[in-house]
Amino acid sequence: MADPKIINGVNVDELFNTINAVKKSPLIATFKFRATNKWIKGGHNRTSIRNFYGVQKDHPHKMRFELDADEPQVLLGDDKAPNPVEYALAALAACVTSSIVYHAAAKGIKLNSVESRLEGDIDLQGFLGLSKEVPRGYKEIRMYFKIDADAPKEKLDEIVQLGPTYSPVFDTFTRAVPVKVKLET
Amino acid sequence: MADPKIINGVNVDELFNTINAVKKSPLIATFKFRATNKWIKGGHNRTSIRNFYGVQKDHPHKMRFELDADEPQVLLGDDKAPNPVEYALAALAACVTSSIVYHAAAKGIKLNSVESRLEGDIDLQGFLGLSKEVPRGYKEIRMYFKIDADAPKEKLDEIVQLGPTYSPVFDTFTRAVPVKVKLET
Repeated sequence: MADPKIINGVNVDELFNTINAVKKSPLIATFKFRATNKWIKGGHNRTSIRNFYGVQKDHPHKMRFELDADEPQVLLGDDKAPNPVEYALAALAACVTSSIVYHAAAKGIKLNSVESRLEGDIDLQGFLGLSKEVPRGYKEIRMYFKIDADAPKEKLDEIVQLGPTYSPVFDTFTRAVPVKVKLET
Repeated sequence: MADPKIINGVNVDELFNTINAVKKSPLIATFKFRATNKWIKGGHNRTSIRNFYGVQKDHPHKMRFELDADEPQVLLGDDKAPNPVEYALAALAACVTSSIVYHAAAKGIKLNSVESRLEGDIDLQGFLGLSKEVPRGYKEIRMYFKIDADAPKEKLDEIVQLGPTYSPVFDTFTRAVPVKVKLET
């Protein structure tokens, strides 16, 4: 057998195998991602990520991932870890980046480097309950990419736009997703 | 001076000082959160969080926080770290939890424990570009809370609902937030 075709660290043969398998049996594309969280003290809490469902079965991760969140001192925490809205930026940055990388690989475009910086605006009057007009979350988020690729300069903007076009977290932020919050007794 | 009033690990005197300061000068409530990201290989990339803006100045965090993301093997990664949509769940879990904790403290409700589990549905036909009707991100997210508090049982659901009422990340997911993605040259 020939060596697998690897572009940007993505096994493109496997990627097209996956695409073809999903075309035949769309049910294998149904994924359920999971997390548990335990409050520690004040703004400090810990999320654990252990397994997910996909391709019609449960998959354990190689290890249990633990993600601590805290608030900085100006927001009355101890600054032990990023805060939740910073985790939201990390999720967005990682997802838009991976979407660029995977979709560029599928198009045969070799990337040399991808870097980004993000900034998002929050007016705490929302969280503090001081105004009904001020949103509690991000009013706007801006992402700026620097990309070096084996592609002409005029192609780079097209490559960057693969991110927002396909990224699940970009879609989660920019579309109104139903989130149900329930008390379990 | 009297000892500060601490409930749930939150300095409630400081919290009300902050609320009063924001009422007088709403501009101090304007925050800008920031992150940078660097692609490593395939689905593996790293977000760094160093500083933010608020109360009319820049604040460095106590340390630089680094958050690696990767994809599990079934999604063609090495499973070195949580994936971006799992980071999104962590952001949501942490934020709804802290919103419950802070707003319960403001109301004088002592919490003994707060635990939650989350599950979100994604159909990868969206990410793979196989269907325009299937959303690329979460179709729905469910959060289940277990709370032990110094409050009557019938109050617990009200306490849980402080989370979705005030959480910035809950709002970011459930409202359509503008996210601008640009190439920087």
